[in-house]
Amino acid sequence: MTSEIFPHDVQQILDLVGIFVFALSGGLMAVRKNMDIFGICVLAEATALGGGVLRDLVIGALPVAAFTNSGYFPTPLVAGVVVFFLHPEVERITRAVMVLDAAGLGLFAVTGTIKAHDYGLGAVASVACGMLTAAGGGVVRDVLAMEPPSLLRWDREIYAVPALIGAAITALLIGIGQLTPVSAALAAVAAFTVRMLALKYGWRAPRAWHRNGSRTSEE
Amino acid sequence: MTSEIFPHDVQQILDLVGIFVFALSGGLMAVRKNMDIFGICVLAEATALGGGVLRDLVIGALPVAAFTNSGYFPTPLVAGVVVFFLHPEVERITRAVMVLDAAGLGLFAVTGTIKAHDYGLGAVASVACGMLTAAGGGVVRDVLAMEPPSLLRWDREIYAVPALIGAAITALLIGIGQLTPVSAALAAVAAFTVRMLALKYGWRAPRAWHRNGSRTSEE
Amino acid sequence: MTSEIFPHDVQQILDLVGIFVFALSGGLMAVRKNMDIFGICVLAEATALGGGVLRDLVIGALPVAAFTNSGYFPTPLVAGVVVFFLHPEVERITRAVMVLDAAGLGLFAVTGTIKAHDYGLGAVASVACGMLTAAGGGVVRDVLAMEPPSLLRWDREIYAVPALIGAAITALLIGIGQLTPVSAALAAVAAFTVRMLALKYGWRAPRAWHRNGSRTSEE
Repeated sequence: MTSEIFPHDVQQILDLVGIFVFALSGGLMAVRKNMDIFGICVLAEATALGGGVLRDLVIGALPVAAFTNSGYFPTPLVAGVVVFFLHPEVERITRAVMVLDAAGLGLFAVTGTIKAHDYGLGAVASVACGMLTAAGGGVVRDVLAMEPPSLLRWDREIYAVPALIGAAITALLIGIGQLTPVSAALAAVAAFTVRMLALKYGWRAPRAWHRNGSRTSEE
Repeated sequence: MTSEIFPHDVQQILDLVGIFVFALSGGLMAVRKNMDIFGICVLAEATALGGGVLRDLVIGALPVAAFTNSGYFPTPLVAGVVVFFLHPEVERITRAVMVLDAAGLGLFAVTGTIKAHDYGLGAVASVACGMLTAAGGGVVRDVLAMEPPSLLRWDREIYAVPALIGAAITALLIGIGQLTPVSAALAAVAAFTVRMLALKYGWRAPRAWHRNGSRTSEE
Repeated sequence: MTSEIFPHDVQQILDLVGIFVFALSGGLMAVRKNMDIFGICVLAEATALGGGVLRDLVIGALPVAAFTNSGYFPTPLVAGVVVFFLHPEVERITRAVMVLDAAGLGLFAVTGTIKAHDYGLGAVASVACGMLTAAGGGVVRDVLAMEPPSLLRWDREIYAVPALIGAAITALLIGIGQLTPVSAALAAVAAFTVRMLALKYGWRAPRAWHRNGSRTSEE
């Protein structure tokens, strides 16, 4: 299966690191929302695995990988416990967490696109699935925490665009038959880099033209 | 597959028109919520394709049609861009959008019911899937936009009932072996008509009997 | 299929009772949110069947049981109508409803775990699916009603833990080859008992350590 474009062990380690960091962001949200240890673990699971589960559902890769890969489910529980005991320390390294989150974003955009292609989807649909894999978990996290989805907010640095870039490069590489571990890694690095630059320079996306009075109401 | 009750090209055009109008309603909600261009496109996609995706998931039609029919995914992006540049103009023709939305409601209630039946579901379950197809996208839109789902609000004109009527007539036609392009179109027209009458005369559904004090708190 | 660990008729009756009570909790939430009769029925359906639908989706048991078992879909409609006409009476027997809800929690934690195992999932994943079956509907209910999910709130009696206990005992019984109708019933009773004790003594789960100033803001 080409969705394991990297050597099996490398892929698994990368996946688990990505899952762990996404889980941290879910756990921190749960602490901010004053949830208990179970809420922290549930939100860590939903954030870390939500994107991949949504991808597997829509492409029909069932049972979902979250429940068949034996490392995927326990990892967010570890992250949840870490946040439970050490959340001030985790908050203090938010910068490091965001760097790792950007790495996870790049990784999952690439592997999500490849897996969708493996299941027979076309290039455009595969790109959409790559973005869903990378960004879906964060949307699930925000919906469960009753927060306006960060992905949809104009006042947050762009998140969908880096995912789109990583997924689109991957689909292009597949299309021209040049998908290799090295080129796939470069696609992930491209997404990672754009996300890091967006964070550094506060890149945001434009809102609709000609918005009028209602503007102030939500700002 | 009888879910293509209409000639293939006609069906595709009807589907794309329905998807486009549903996407407009998602895009307009995104503008009202002050989202950026990506938020507009994400909400347009989720609103337009959400109902069909939910139906395909529960009946097991995987990968979902949203990702296998090459016209389905790009259409909401076009609607999103239209809303981005022209939202005051789109708001101005809200009346026309609501008429087309009612047409989409009727169409998807009918085709959703037929597709569920094609996948082996019974009459009651097929009707439920028809309603899910027609109304599910709007619920996804409202959840992502952090709005109380319009479908569930007593102070909105009935939306579930027209969908129910279209779906129930379709299931009945299937049951008596009289499903033809003409009769299916009539079922869609019936749903459309009830929805238009509901809008015109402000038809609402009753709330629970004997509600007491708490009434005023949410009105 | 061992997910019918009990005799078929007994299983069906237990399932329908569990679905009915879960539907009551959805219907009552809808009344509290001032929804109309259709909102009441939609929320009753989503609450009663949501957990099982999510389980069936992730394990790939499609079409979902909610639409293939002919008793599952109509039952919440009956509960919705009961709530519509008699909600003050239903509110008055909240205590009885909570007892039955705890019984449903225990039942679905056990049967959900067994069904996941039948579809080839490992022990940990099966336990997660058991919890999802038991608690997922309530989360869907709260998201649709725009309420912070009760499952995730620190100030509510524990709900995930009893489900975890019932599911874990079931997975253990499967592992040691001792799953029988009697032992499965005991697993459900264990979950039920812990939930009832949690309600009686107000058991709650701990929140993150070292929370600081932000604490007061949400309490």
